[in-house]
Amino acid sequence: VAMRFSRFARINPYIQQYQFTVLMLLVHLLFIVLFGVYVSFDELYAMPTAANDNTYLNSKYPYYMGTHVMIFIGFAYLMAFLKRYGYSSISINMLLACLTIEWSVLCRGFFSKDFAEIGTISLNIDQLLRADFSSACVLISMGVVLGKLSPIQYVIMTLIEVPASTATEHLVMDAFQINDAGGSIVVHVFGAYFGIALSLAFSSKAQRGHEHDCSIYHTDMFAMLGTLFIFVNWPSLNAATAVTAEEHHRAIINTHLSLVGCTVATFLVCPIFEPRKKFNMVQIANSTIAGGVAIGTCANVVLDPILSLALGSIAGVISVLGYIYLTPYLSERLRLHDTCGLHNLHGNKNIIEMKSFVA
Amino acid sequence: VAMRFSRFARINPYIQQYQFTVLMLLVHLLFIVLFGVYVSFDELYAMPTAANDNTYLNSKYPYYMGTHVMIFIGFAYLMAFLKRYGYSSISINMLLACLTIEWSVLCRGFFSKDFAEIGTISLNIDQLLRADFSSACVLISMGVVLGKLSPIQYVIMTLIEVPASTATEHLVMDAFQINDAGGSIVVHVFGAYFGIALSLAFSSKAQRGHEHDCSIYHTDMFAMLGTLFIFVNWPSLNAATAVTAEEHHRAIINTHLSLVGCTVATFLVCPIFEPRKKFNMVQIANSTIAGGVAIGTCANVVLDPILSLALGSIAGVISVLGYIYLTPYLSERLRLHDTCGLHNLHGNKNIIEMKSFVA
Amino acid sequence: VAMRFSRFARINPYIQQYQFTVLMLLVHLLFIVLFGVYVSFDELYAMPTAANDNTYLNSKYPYYMGTHVMIFIGFAYLMAFLKRYGYSSISINMLLACLTIEWSVLCRGFFSKDFAEIGTISLNIDQLLRADFSSACVLISMGVVLGKLSPIQYVIMTLIEVPASTATEHLVMDAFQINDAGGSIVVHVFGAYFGIALSLAFSSKAQRGHEHDCSIYHTDMFAMLGTLFIFVNWPSLNAATAVTAEEHHRAIINTHLSLVGCTVATFLVCPIFEPRKKFNMVQIANSTIAGGVAIGTCANVVLDPILSLALGSIAGVISVLGYIYLTPYLSERLRLHDTCGLHNLHGNKNIIEMKSFVA
Repeated sequence: VAMRFSRFARINPYIQQYQFTVLMLLVHLLFIVLFGVYVSFDELYAMPTAANDNTYLNSKYPYYMGTHVMIFIGFAYLMAFLKRYGYSSISINMLLACLTIEWSVLCRGFFSKDFAEIGTISLNIDQLLRADFSSACVLISMGVVLGKLSPIQYVIMTLIEVPASTATEHLVMDAFQINDAGGSIVVHVFGAYFGIALSLAFSSKAQRGHEHDCSIYHTDMFAMLGTLFIFVNWPSLNAATAVTAEEHHRAIINTHLSLVGCTVATFLVCPIFEPRKKFNMVQIANSTIAGGVAIGTCANVVLDPILSLALGSIAGVISVLGYIYLTPYLSERLRLHDTCGLHNLHGNKNIIEMKSFVA
Repeated sequence: VAMRFSRFARINPYIQQYQFTVLMLLVHLLFIVLFGVYVSFDELYAMPTAANDNTYLNSKYPYYMGTHVMIFIGFAYLMAFLKRYGYSSISINMLLACLTIEWSVLCRGFFSKDFAEIGTISLNIDQLLRADFSSACVLISMGVVLGKLSPIQYVIMTLIEVPASTATEHLVMDAFQINDAGGSIVVHVFGAYFGIALSLAFSSKAQRGHEHDCSIYHTDMFAMLGTLFIFVNWPSLNAATAVTAEEHHRAIINTHLSLVGCTVATFLVCPIFEPRKKFNMVQIANSTIAGGVAIGTCANVVLDPILSLALGSIAGVISVLGYIYLTPYLSERLRLHDTCGLHNLHGNKNIIEMKSFVA
Repeated sequence: VAMRFSRFARINPYIQQYQFTVLMLLVHLLFIVLFGVYVSFDELYAMPTAANDNTYLNSKYPYYMGTHVMIFIGFAYLMAFLKRYGYSSISINMLLACLTIEWSVLCRGFFSKDFAEIGTISLNIDQLLRADFSSACVLISMGVVLGKLSPIQYVIMTLIEVPASTATEHLVMDAFQINDAGGSIVVHVFGAYFGIALSLAFSSKAQRGHEHDCSIYHTDMFAMLGTLFIFVNWPSLNAATAVTAEEHHRAIINTHLSLVGCTVATFLVCPIFEPRKKFNMVQIANSTIAGGVAIGTCANVVLDPILSLALGSIAGVISVLGYIYLTPYLSERLRLHDTCGLHNLHGNKNIIEMKSFVA
C-alpha cells in the first residue's frame, strides 16, 4: 500500500500541472467511445428513393449554416468586448461549442424515441442543428460568468449544463408539448438563469467594477460584428426546426420584423439615459438583438405582422431599461455580477411572454 | 390661450432635448399602426397544397440571407473606415436599414396591385428582399454624406428618400417595364445622386480635408471586411429577384465574373497612380466591387461570359480613375464632398451603361 | 536597327516602372480574349424543361456561397495575422483568388470532355465551385511564402501553379479515378508542397526570426475571424462536389464532426507545451481547422460517425505537434521558413491518410 501511495504521490504533481489536459482527454475519449457504441448515420437518408431528392436537405442546410455562423462567430465576437478577454472569449467560445456538440448529441440521443426502441442514436442534420441550440444555451451561461472562471471550470460547467438543459428540453417539448420553435425557453431562459446561478456562486466583491470589465474602441467594433452576425442569422435559427414551408416562411418574417422593431426601439430609448446624447455601444450591441429572443417561442405561429413588430419593440425597450436599472441593482444588492448583462437580453423573455399573452 | 402657450413653453425644452426620441417614437408608432391596419401575411403561403413544398422558399432563402449580410454587415463595415466614425457608421447603418425596412414595406405596398384591388399589403419573403434593396439605396446616400449629418437628419433623410425611391422604382419597373434585376438604376444610381444632392446642400469648406476624413490601420482592416462581404454576397443580390432557374443561374455567374474582372482591373490600374507602387486600400476597398453595380441591371440577361468579364473590367478602371481625378475635382470646384467616393462606385453606372450598349 | 533599339531603350524604363501593370494587362486581356473564343454558358440550364425547376440550383448555391466565403474572407483574414502584412495579405489574397478563377476556368475547361468533343468550355455553377477550389490551392501556397514575394512574383506563381494543379487534378480524378470530395489531395497537399518548394527557393537566413514575423493583439482577433469562417463553411466545401443527397448529407456531418473532434483535441494538447498554461492563439487559429483537411478526401464516403470524430482528433494532435517540433526543425535545418506553418495544417494530410487506412 505504501509503495502504491508513493507512486501516486509521484504522479500527482503531473496531474495537477496538466489537470486541464487530463480531464479533457478522459472526457474526449469517453465521448469517442460512446459515439462508437451508440451513434450511427440516420438510415432514412440512405434509402435509395430519397437519394436523388435534395429537397429535404435543401430546406435544412441554409438554416443550419445560419445557426452555425450565429454560434461560432456571432456569440464569439459579441463576447469579445472586454478589453483583456478578447482571446479568451473567442477561444473558450469555440472550445465549449465543440464540446457541447459532442456531448449534446449523446445526451439528446439517450432521451430519443429511436434509442428507446432500437438502442442506437440516429445522427442527421436535425441533430446537428439541435446540438447548435445546446451550444447557444451553454454560451449564454458562459457570457454571464465571462472572465470569472478558469478554462477547466468552464469545461465542468458544460459537462453539467448540457444534460440538465437536454432533460429540461425533453420535459418542455415532449412531456408538456409546449411550442418553442426558436428554443427560447430551453435555450435562452435556461442558459441565462443557469449562468446567473453560477455567477451568484462565483462573484466576489472584488470583481465588480474591476478595471478589466470595460471595453475599448476596437473591441466594440468586434462586438458589433458579433451582434450583426446574430441579427442577420436569427431568422435561420428560429426557422430551423419548423416543419412545413408555411411555418418556415412565417418564422423568417416574424423574426425579421421583431428584430427590426427591437432595433428601432433600442435606438429610440437609448439617448434618453445618455447625458451626452450619444448612443451607448454596449446597449446597441446587446439590446438590438433582444427581439430575436422575444419572438423565439412563437415565431412559427404568430399570425399578424404587427404583433411581431410590437413584441420586438417592447423587448428592445425592456432590454435597455434592464441595462440602466436592473444590472446596477443586481450588482449592488444581490452581488450578482452579470458581465455581459445577459439577464437583460435572454432572461427578460418571461416578462415579455406575459405581455404577449395579454396582447 | 396664454395658459396653453405657457404650458407649451414648459414642455418645449424637453422636446428639444429629446427631439430624436420624440421624432423616432412618433414615426415608429405610426409605422406599427399602419402595419396593423394594412399589412398581413401573404395567403399564398398558407394554402394547404403549397405547405409541404419547400421548393419556392428554398430558392429564395439563400439569396435573402446573402442580401441581408450585404446590407447589415457589408455596408456597415465598408463605411467604418473613417478614424472617428466607426461607431457612428455601424450604428446609424443599422438604424437606417431597420427604419427603411419598415417604411419601404409600407411605401412599396401602397403602390402594389394587391393594395389597389383588396386594400391590404401582402407580406412575403420577396417583400423583405425588396425592402433590403431600399435599405441599400438609403445606405448609399448615407455613405456620401457620412460624418456630415446628425442622427436626426439621417432619419429625416430616410423618411424622404424611401417614398421617393419607391415611386421611382414603380415608374422604372412597372410603368416603363425596364429590366433592372439587381436594382442598379433604382438602388445605386438613385441612392448615389440623392446623396450627392444632399452633400451639395450640407458641404461647407471647413469639412473638406478635415482631420477626421482619413483612415488608420485597423479601420481599413474593417473596411476590407465590409468589401469582402459585399463581394461575396453580390451574386445573391443580383439573383434575388430572378424568376426562373436559368435566370438565377445566369445572374450568379455574370455577377461573379463581373466582380472578378473588376477586381483584376482595379489591381492593374491602381499602382500607376501611386508614387510608391503600393496598393491604395481605399481604392481596393471600393473599386473592386464596382463590377457588381455595373452588371446589376442586366445580370439575368447577359448571354455571353466575356461581356460580363469585360464590363466588370471597365467598371473597375472607371472607378479608380474616378477616385484619382473626379473626387478631387468635384470637391474643389463644386464643393461636393463625397466622403466615401460613392459617385465613383455607384454613380458611374450611367457611363458604363452607355458603353455596354455600344458593346 | 540603332533607331529601333533607341526607341526600345526609351520605352524600357517605363516598362520596368510599370512592370506589374504591364504584365497584368497582358494576362487579363489574354484571359478576356480566351473567354470570348472558348467559354459559353452551359446549355443544360437553358433548356425549357429545366427552367422552372430550381432543385438543382438550390442544392448547389448554399455550398457555392459557403466555399466563396471561405476563400475570400476565411483565407484572407487567417493570413492577416502578421503585424505588418495585414493589408498585403488581404489584398493579394483577393487579387490571386480572382486571377485564379479566370485562369482555372480556362485551364480546367481545356482538360474537359466538352472541350475535346465540341471545342467550347461550358460554364456553370459547378465550374465556379471548382475554380474556388483552385483558388484555395493557390492561397495555401501563398500562405507558405507570405511576406517573401513581391506582388508580381505572386502573380507569376499563380500563372504557373494553376495549370500545374489542374493537370494534377485531371490525373488524380479522371485518369486514376481517385475519390477526393473536398479536393484534399489536389488542393491542400499540392498547394502546401508547391508553397514549400517556393519557400525553399526564396528563403534566406535573414528572413527567419524577422521582427515582422509576429502577431499583435488585434491582428490575432482578425486571424481568429478567418479561422471561424473557415470552420463554419468547411462542410459546404466538402459537400460541394457531392452528387446525391445522401453524399451531401454524409459529407456535411462527417466534416462537422471531424472539425469538432479536431478543435477539442487541439485545446487538449495545446497547454502541455505552453509554460504558462495559456492557449497559444497561433495554434488555436490553425490547428482547429486541420480536421477539415483530414476528412476532405473521404468526407462523402466515411460510414461511421466515430471515424470522422477520431480522424479529426488525430489531425488536431498532429497539427499542434507539427507547430511545436516540425516548424522550428524545418526552419533550422532545411532553411525552410513556413510563415503560416501550413505544412502542419495542409501537408499532414499524407500522414493522416496512412493512419486512416490502418483504422
